[in-house]
Amino acid sequence: MAVKIVILGAGPGGYVAAVRASKMGAEVTLIEADHVGGTCLNRGCIPSKVMKTTAEMLNHYKRSKEFGVAIAGDAHLDMKGLMTRKETVVQTQAKGILNLLANNKIEYLRGKGKITASHRIEAQMQDGGIRELVYDKLILATGSEPYEIPSIPFDGQKVLSSSHVLELSDVPKSLVIVGGGVIGCEFAFIFSSFGTQVTMVEGLQRLLPLPSIDEDCSRTIAREMKKRKIKIVLNRTVESVENHNEHLRLSIGKSPFSDTQNDETIPSQIIEAEKVLICVGRKPNTEGIGLKRAGVALDQKGWIIANDKMETNVDDIFAIGDVLGPEKIMLAHVASSEGIVAVENAMGGDRCMKYDTVPGAIFTIPEVANVGLTEAQAKESYGAVRADSVLFRHIGKAHVIGEIAGQVKIISEQDSGKILGVHIVGPHATDLIAEGTLAVQKGCTVKELAETIHAHPTLSEAMMETAMKSSGMEIHG
Amino acid sequence: MAVKIVILGAGPGGYVAAVRASKMGAEVTLIEADHVGGTCLNRGCIPSKVMKTTAEMLNHYKRSKEFGVAIAGDAHLDMKGLMTRKETVVQTQAKGILNLLANNKIEYLRGKGKITASHRIEAQMQDGGIRELVYDKLILATGSEPYEIPSIPFDGQKVLSSSHVLELSDVPKSLVIVGGGVIGCEFAFIFSSFGTQVTMVEGLQRLLPLPSIDEDCSRTIAREMKKRKIKIVLNRTVESVENHNEHLRLSIGKSPFSDTQNDETIPSQIIEAEKVLICVGRKPNTEGIGLKRAGVALDQKGWIIANDKMETNVDDIFAIGDVLGPEKIMLAHVASSEGIVAVENAMGGDRCMKYDTVPGAIFTIPEVANVGLTEAQAKESYGAVRADSVLFRHIGKAHVIGEIAGQVKIISEQDSGKILGVHIVGPHATDLIAEGTLAVQKGCTVKELAETIHAHPTLSEAMMETAMKSSGMEIHG
Repeated sequence: MAVKIVILGAGPGGYVAAVRASKMGAEVTLIEADHVGGTCLNRGCIPSKVMKTTAEMLNHYKRSKEFGVAIAGDAHLDMKGLMTRKETVVQTQAKGILNLLANNKIEYLRGKGKITASHRIEAQMQDGGIRELVYDKLILATGSEPYEIPSIPFDGQKVLSSSHVLELSDVPKSLVIVGGGVIGCEFAFIFSSFGTQVTMVEGLQRLLPLPSIDEDCSRTIAREMKKRKIKIVLNRTVESVENHNEHLRLSIGKSPFSDTQNDETIPSQIIEAEKVLICVGRKPNTEGIGLKRAGVALDQKGWIIANDKMETNVDDIFAIGDVLGPEKIMLAHVASSEGIVAVENAMGGDRCMKYDTVPGAIFTIPEVANVGLTEAQAKESYGAVRADSVLFRHIGKAHVIGEIAGQVKIISEQDSGKILGVHIVGPHATDLIAEGTLAVQKGCTVKELAETIHAHPTLSEAMMETAMKSSGMEIHG
Repeated sequence: MAVKIVILGAGPGGYVAAVRASKMGAEVTLIEADHVGGTCLNRGCIPSKVMKTTAEMLNHYKRSKEFGVAIAGDAHLDMKGLMTRKETVVQTQAKGILNLLANNKIEYLRGKGKITASHRIEAQMQDGGIRELVYDKLILATGSEPYEIPSIPFDGQKVLSSSHVLELSDVPKSLVIVGGGVIGCEFAFIFSSFGTQVTMVEGLQRLLPLPSIDEDCSRTIAREMKKRKIKIVLNRTVESVENHNEHLRLSIGKSPFSDTQNDETIPSQIIEAEKVLICVGRKPNTEGIGLKRAGVALDQKGWIIANDKMETNVDDIFAIGDVLGPEKIMLAHVASSEGIVAVENAMGGDRCMKYDTVPGAIFTIPEVANVGLTEAQAKESYGAVRADSVLFRHIGKAHVIGEIAGQVKIISEQDSGKILGVHIVGPHATDLIAEGTLAVQKGCTVKELAETIHAHPTLSEAMMETAMKSSGMEIHG
């Protein structure tokens, strides 16, 4: 008899797990309280990248004369048109997922699932009904939602979460973004391209203050923001937000998270803005799904605890995706990989998720992408390492497309030349990182990468040039 | 004492060889009759890709409404502006190369070099002087130029070579492109985007009829041309070109190269057009450089013969780049790799050029890129092979950027799963091929590629999905 697998949550982790399980012969039920595709498709990666695509187009329009294109009038954002396109793209993807589920004979239930007893699930269906299900294996993939600062609640009008900001009907004249992480930085470039005066407020001492992001990338992004007149306020946080006539008045003070010591003397400041976007993190969707009854262990912050086989502490219950929290990297492609690992283990396999070769992709303008260790991490783990960078301005293709900001940086072990990390900021960085990921995954050396022929004129030549430099054979750069 | 190396030709092969030789301790003289950068920089890759960048921008303008951008008036090409940008990009690169030469203490002579006796070179300098040089090792890198059909000589006004077409001051209303190879297809998309009515005439039975190009890529490119109303005439060639009032009258007849049998009955046809671009191949630059005196062997068509160590039949004389002809792949990145191989061997090393992992990059719209064997070649060499494709329309990011045409195709050995070839047609194909090249170079299996995590949402996911399909683990596509 087929193994019965129930999956809670149809985000990228959940639906990929469902397809994989079905292909492996399981009988699969996928339960989703909201739309298929999860945060990624509905309120994250996809809609924000649709906005970025239009943002880049607008940037190109501003430079049209330089490229030999004459336009008669002015170009400006049509927010309604953009929202229509966003909706079309999202719906196309959603339909694709639903077809995938149907084609793989996956039972899809639109409702809220809850563990009621060992190996039993109850689904409160959207249409009002109740479905009782029995499972052999359960996969929790309920995801996360934006974290709300208790003293500054979202109102969806002026105080926005990353979900609200995807639904604006007009371009705000000014926007303060609280949180200089991935989401904050992406929206800073998008809204700046739309014509909004953007101010970034970050509690730590650099933008993109993630351990996985090399400091050089943060520096380049800060420089690019400044070129676009995006204001950056570091080591500070928002203490309060008040309505003041048509505007918000934000009181900005010392950050409790700041890692700099000597800024005690700097007074609080007031920033006025039309809207504020708060992206200071996310919280797990773990309420009302019966975790307590089932005895599933959570960590101090409420994220589900799972090992690298995606097993929770409870037999036959696995967990994947955002609901595992930042320690397991909250990214769509991590969730789908975890989904595949969970399913293979649920079906009797013995596979571990490899977190050390997860690429990161940040859709700022220019993009940032990384895999493996940063220079700082590598020095700590390996001692003698090399870090070599080649600027995109030394690559012909970057000049051809008129995008010369940024660099490729490769971290390699001093003696063996083994590639430990690749950090790219620049044009097409999020596509270029694929080669770096394969290199790290396969344990390639810089010499091997340097001797791999790269097509000319392409942006990937920056990878080769950097690897050449690392192996003492540089030509350009 | 330092080894004296003289290099004839400062194209991508020649100047890279010069830098490498200098870094290895040689005393280097680089002699160039024209500008540094060769065909690639001055009349090839770089200027044509500058034109492609603007062509793509114009295509985006046409779709601006769809992306939520409102423009008041019309957008049209400003050819003068484009030519200015082209010149700026080329000059920036040329300056970069000259700096590279200076920084590496390479003696750069602007003049025409000629072998006068064993280990002796005479340079007729551009300024009228003559320089006599002695070399320990000589590297010939004199390149190629467009092949002229004897009965249809270039006039630079209406009958154009790929060099002339980069210097137009106006957009032609109509253009016939003779030769459906890489250069012809690239210009077809560029001029079609500029508003020119383009007709392609190709003597063989498919576009991009190179052995290295998988037939699926040719089919996709033909389909994309048709969408853009580019006319395609296959198995035909131009018999004559006549001036007729303001236009050219081209008589199109059966191709002597055609590989189809049953088209004897189709009569000749007349096509009228404002201009004709002829790109039916290239010929070697071997005149007047003393090859005969030196005894350097040429093949039947006049290309220099070299082995995979880049050695000619004459001791101490190496040859690299286009001057070796199509059998050694006439691409800038092949030339620079050959340059490095030649120098390492000239300095006493023993390295062979690897032609089986040379990526190809074609800047059509969408782009085409390939590495390794085609499906047909793999079947011939390996027998039992798999060929799996995933369409870009199954990749979320392709929808996000609005470029869903094309696919990734991976050819793998049936039993081992070893990747034998990767063929991409679609957005950013020429960057994405870098991962495929590394995979082929390292002998990766489809399973290894499938288990390498790829960032979402990126175009590189198409590689992973295809590899998943090849290893029986597909999710999408």
